Amino acid sequence: MTNSAPIGVFDSGVGGLTVVKEIMHQLPRESIIYFGDTARLPYGTKSKETIITYTRQIVRFLMAKGVKSIVVACNTASAFALETVKTEVNIPMIGVVKPGAKVAAEATRNGNIGIIGTEGTISSGIYNEFLSLTNPNVQVYGKACPLFVPLVEEGLIEDPVTLEMARRYIGELLAHNIDTLVLGCTHYPLLRRTIRKTVGGTVRLVNPAYETAKSLKEILIDCGLENESLLQMDHTFYVSDGAEKFRRFANSILPCEVIETKDVNIEELMI
Amino acid sequence: MTNSAPIGVFDSGVGGLTVVKEIMHQLPRESIIYFGDTARLPYGTKSKETIITYTRQIVRFLMAKGVKSIVVACNTASAFALETVKTEVNIPMIGVVKPGAKVAAEATRNGNIGIIGTEGTISSGIYNEFLSLTNPNVQVYGKACPLFVPLVEEGLIEDPVTLEMARRYIGELLAHNIDTLVLGCTHYPLLRRTIRKTVGGTVRLVNPAYETAKSLKEILIDCGLENESLLQMDHTFYVSDGAEKFRRFANSILPCEVIETKDVNIEELMI
Repeated sequence: MTNSAPIGVFDSGVGGLTVVKEIMHQLPRESIIYFGDTARLPYGTKSKETIITYTRQIVRFLMAKGVKSIVVACNTASAFALETVKTEVNIPMIGVVKPGAKVAAEATRNGNIGIIGTEGTISSGIYNEFLSLTNPNVQVYGKACPLFVPLVEEGLIEDPVTLEMARRYIGELLAHNIDTLVLGCTHYPLLRRTIRKTVGGTVRLVNPAYETAKSLKEILIDCGLENESLLQMDHTFYVSDGAEKFRRFANSILPCEVIETKDVNIEELMI
Repeated sequence: MTNSAPIGVFDSGVGGLTVVKEIMHQLPRESIIYFGDTARLPYGTKSKETIITYTRQIVRFLMAKGVKSIVVACNTASAFALETVKTEVNIPMIGVVKPGAKVAAEATRNGNIGIIGTEGTISSGIYNEFLSLTNPNVQVYGKACPLFVPLVEEGLIEDPVTLEMARRYIGELLAHNIDTLVLGCTHYPLLRRTIRKTVGGTVRLVNPAYETAKSLKEILIDCGLENESLLQMDHTFYVSDGAEKFRRFANSILPCEVIETKDVNIEELMI
């Protein structure tokens, strides 16, 4: 393993690109290999067993590409599969839940924390678990927001329809007097402005993508794995379906231009 | 094969239940085995190859259950996989596209027909193909409506948000002076009232679910396969994930109570 080896990042689709963006910003010398499982999205409505199977396949794919570390840039896969699959690999593997939960538990002043995410993430109770580990006195209120992902993928990021849905979903949490809200799905940071309008100026919004990139940086330094070479980084994007659509979306999110994406048949890969 | 054998019906999820409802209504003596591929939905954004693979697996599952006929109650699978997979089985197999297209081509007076459906169905151009076969003079205008399925699954069937999205999606088609609109996704008949408000009273709405049940009846009669026994029918519902959620949805749509649904791991089935 050389320090110039890439970091593997994966998600069910395009959402994980918000994590890639933070990694590019906080770790500008690192190369990234991204896998978006667009053929099998969404993950948020699927069962734990299914998500573990998918995660194992993708981790095997990334390992074969020689990554030095893996970031599970999907809250559902972090909730359902990370603990199981990380014991099966010999490189650092982190998810987005723990870094986000830690910051939220430290940030709250009145102890009332809201979490928004997919049905899978919310019903798993994973955020409650990690939040209580850091701060046993917090009250956690979760709300699944199933329309947010399709609204983002339709490009309706600051649309009145999205604002209306945000008011309905998040209104319930505001009634519990939350002072901190975790954006518990990697698509949601793209709705940041709309969510800010809904919650007002005083609620702290926690973006696990940002916290995850920060954690990754610490881990790479701790393990002596950060890239110190001045050679140019090289980012590669793989998807299991719809490479062209993915490329357009990636170019609207990332600070660098994504010139090419590659289709991979993840179910038939025998690595 | 006995005439009392069940009819196999499948869809990517709950949408195909609108076809089941019509079959129960028009063929009240027939038993039904339904498969909803809830672990791998949605189909509408996936590639042709992926949909053919999934369809083959489900058809094998239904054949093993002894069905006498198969209805592909999913527009995307009808568009992408029916022509290929029907040649591989020795029982009648029909989809929802052809019956819907035929009625629309016959119903239009000014020759301008609108089709709404998933991205997969619309980009496949399958409705244009079948419409032109019946009536070469029609002009066909397609519009993908990616938010309609998640809106239905959130239960927002007559919600102002859904009405707003319907106005945006269908407004484009109305500008082409359509007099006929095909509800080209099995979820959409559940939005019938909202769509009616959007198009006004004069546009003819074509529900392929109704036309498909009618075609199925004709085929069973032509093949001498209709059930004439007076024994009670028996309906069974299988899903690849989330049986309990499916059961609740089914009970809100179907005229009979769905007491039990069964989980099936479709990817690991070796039939």
